[in-house]
Amino acid sequence: MTTATPNPRPLHLNAFLWDVGHHEAAWRLPDADPAAVWDVEHFKNLARIAERGKLDSLFLADSPVLQTDPGRRPPGKIEPTVLLTALAGATEHIGLIATASTSYNEPFNLARRFASLDIVSGGRAGWNIVTTAGADAARNFGLDDVPLHKERYERADEFVEVATKLWDSWADDATVGDKENGIHTLADKVRKIDHRGRFFRVDGPLNSPRTPQGWPLLVQAGSSEDGKAFAARWAEAVFTAQQTLEEAQAFYTDLKARTAALGRDPETIKILPGIVPVIGDTEAEARELEERLERLINPEYARLQLAKTLRVHPDALVLDEQLPADLPTEDEIEGAKSRYTLVVELARRERLTVRQLIARLGGGRGHRTFTGTPVQVADAIEEWFDHGAADGFNIMPAVLPSGLEAFVDKVVPILQERGRFRTDYEGSTLRDRYGLPRPANQFDLPRGDAVRGVSA
Amino acid sequence: MTTATPNPRPLHLNAFLWDVGHHEAAWRLPDADPAAVWDVEHFKNLARIAERGKLDSLFLADSPVLQTDPGRRPPGKIEPTVLLTALAGATEHIGLIATASTSYNEPFNLARRFASLDIVSGGRAGWNIVTTAGADAARNFGLDDVPLHKERYERADEFVEVATKLWDSWADDATVGDKENGIHTLADKVRKIDHRGRFFRVDGPLNSPRTPQGWPLLVQAGSSEDGKAFAARWAEAVFTAQQTLEEAQAFYTDLKARTAALGRDPETIKILPGIVPVIGDTEAEARELEERLERLINPEYARLQLAKTLRVHPDALVLDEQLPADLPTEDEIEGAKSRYTLVVELARRERLTVRQLIARLGGGRGHRTFTGTPVQVADAIEEWFDHGAADGFNIMPAVLPSGLEAFVDKVVPILQERGRFRTDYEGSTLRDRYGLPRPANQFDLPRGDAVRGVSA
Repeated sequence: MTTATPNPRPLHLNAFLWDVGHHEAAWRLPDADPAAVWDVEHFKNLARIAERGKLDSLFLADSPVLQTDPGRRPPGKIEPTVLLTALAGATEHIGLIATASTSYNEPFNLARRFASLDIVSGGRAGWNIVTTAGADAARNFGLDDVPLHKERYERADEFVEVATKLWDSWADDATVGDKENGIHTLADKVRKIDHRGRFFRVDGPLNSPRTPQGWPLLVQAGSSEDGKAFAARWAEAVFTAQQTLEEAQAFYTDLKARTAALGRDPETIKILPGIVPVIGDTEAEARELEERLERLINPEYARLQLAKTLRVHPDALVLDEQLPADLPTEDEIEGAKSRYTLVVELARRERLTVRQLIARLGGGRGHRTFTGTPVQVADAIEEWFDHGAADGFNIMPAVLPSGLEAFVDKVVPILQERGRFRTDYEGSTLRDRYGLPRPANQFDLPRGDAVRGVSA
Repeated sequence: MTTATPNPRPLHLNAFLWDVGHHEAAWRLPDADPAAVWDVEHFKNLARIAERGKLDSLFLADSPVLQTDPGRRPPGKIEPTVLLTALAGATEHIGLIATASTSYNEPFNLARRFASLDIVSGGRAGWNIVTTAGADAARNFGLDDVPLHKERYERADEFVEVATKLWDSWADDATVGDKENGIHTLADKVRKIDHRGRFFRVDGPLNSPRTPQGWPLLVQAGSSEDGKAFAARWAEAVFTAQQTLEEAQAFYTDLKARTAALGRDPETIKILPGIVPVIGDTEAEARELEERLERLINPEYARLQLAKTLRVHPDALVLDEQLPADLPTEDEIEGAKSRYTLVVELARRERLTVRQLIARLGGGRGHRTFTGTPVQVADAIEEWFDHGAADGFNIMPAVLPSGLEAFVDKVVPILQERGRFRTDYEGSTLRDRYGLPRPANQFDLPRGDAVRGVSA
């Protein structure tokens, strides 16, 4: 255990909300409301709990497709920019991070929607930028199959470039409201962007002023080679699935170095591995909850899902045997590359049977599950934080709201007592939470200068 | 004035919110906050005023482009689905109608966002379906010019067809939440739509259950030939700009007949002409407010805007002369066709100079301005309502919030005393407000049957 020496380096905690819990069987617990995934009051309650714990932000994952077997767990989701707007009205301080796809949106529409969320929330918007894996999603948008991984990231890169230009298309002091002379906003401080690129042609300007944060916080969550290159260029916070301290350290070191290599201060990219805390007042209680959830997994749904992730026929997966030897390599995967490798390596390293692997994935879908007492969870957080593996954590409670309540009411106070975590909010924006600056407006700068990442 | 005989036919009133008022110079009044257009609290206040008056709904117009000279009036807007989600949390009963474009969105994304708004608001979502005029908007989406009017409407038609299929892709009783057997939602009650059309290929299903209203209320606001054909097929409420009783009667009769000709009950399409009430406790007071606003119009901005609407060079418009004789015909206009004709006919009919026309348009941009006392406004509403011109009105206060307050606190009580308008809300959904049924789920019906408008 780490000592309580005050540490000036701030720890960041994000609450990743997912229906009634990250564990796929959470909805089967006696207290769970299976319809809560469609109940905005359920999410308002979660948001208020997280804010009570002074957490940095809330996060909602997303994909524009029905992602799961409808029988297995609550399928589908309320669209995140809509849900987070509703949560903005139920909270005052906590950041609001919505996932949205660069493959299946137009930059003008999405840049505008995030600008609107930033305005409505008083500067609390974040965008988790995803390229969206899977042919099923592609087939909701006129395509026969998902675009190539590399192509998706190239589009994402240009998409974010266009979005930042749009967010900067109004000077910060464009609106003067000069009633006497009848000049609401200065026309020469609202500029077209005239973007002409490989994927997009967008004239602009945005029909929205520069927002409280300038840009929403840019978040990224893919850990493939393409994903890491993208993160190094654009991301200010990164969610990542890491199973062991060593892997997390390697990822952390690599991504900070890649970021520095592009001329960015590595302090401006915050790395938050996921953790699925299963908390009990005693170890036995925690273990009991974990086992109870495992017993509620329907192994047949899970086996089909695993076969899809691994791109094998379901018959190749036998519940009480290990994974087959002849799996595809990551290079052959056009979907969620890094998650694929993580699952295969986890199974191989711990020699798990398919049944055991399913139990491990049922909680966090590849994220690290940590089962223990509040002190043990706090220790686990400090260990990674102090050993070059994390700037904070993406908290993924197995069961909601109870798992978030346990984290906020039992783990957070320990971290606060140890001088590790804020006891109150300072500042007002999501960027303030993460200690990140408001981006300078690129149109206030000499052209061609200081626009991060915009290639020469 | 009509007598107070109770009339069982319900009158519908929608509050059309537009920054600090529909009059382009409203922001220059001493009490106006020029930045209110970006202030969610301003809109929450307006929403609560409208709900206090038991109005049916709120409505936000929109276009994905900077629509006005930035100097002239507050340019741009908060994106309507975001803003109305915020207003859903500040109100309980009033309907929430957002404008969104079929030309510059994907059906999956937009159908989902309206489903989410309907869920979050407890069944209060409406969609004002627009095809978006103007080359400037097209150039924010990779196009060089706006698609042809007819082509835009053909796309809109297929877009709405896809959206309704997605909204109906879950049976109403799909989710069973069977904890014991581990079946959350019945897989055979969630169906792909496999849409293959001229504009769209969408597999579905939606990643959202059927919503409280089934479909959001479908609203339409274009009065061109293509627009009326579209409205007759799909619209449940229609906003329209009509200057005289005779024109409004002709439009009303025509659209009801077109609707009936498609086999729909004409009672299921509600027609709401716009009215810009300028209200004073005396006629003189009302007239004074109107003149005060007219004096604050910057004629130069307005002349440039009018030239754009009329597709003429600004030099062709001389402030103290009438419109030039050689204007384009409606057929040559690829933009907002019916608005073009309305403006030209208004100017010709009343022999207005450019300056006078600008004053008339400054308040309602083509909608009817009515200046008078609360009793006169109530009379004007009853006259059109009783003479086959309207099922209700789209209320467009020249100044906000004061104009909405005057309408709600002074005109609404008169309409209530006369037995013309509800004194409390009944039911809970926007469809309840307009007395419209929840659509049957087309996937519960024999295939090919009863899907309104889906062509054989």
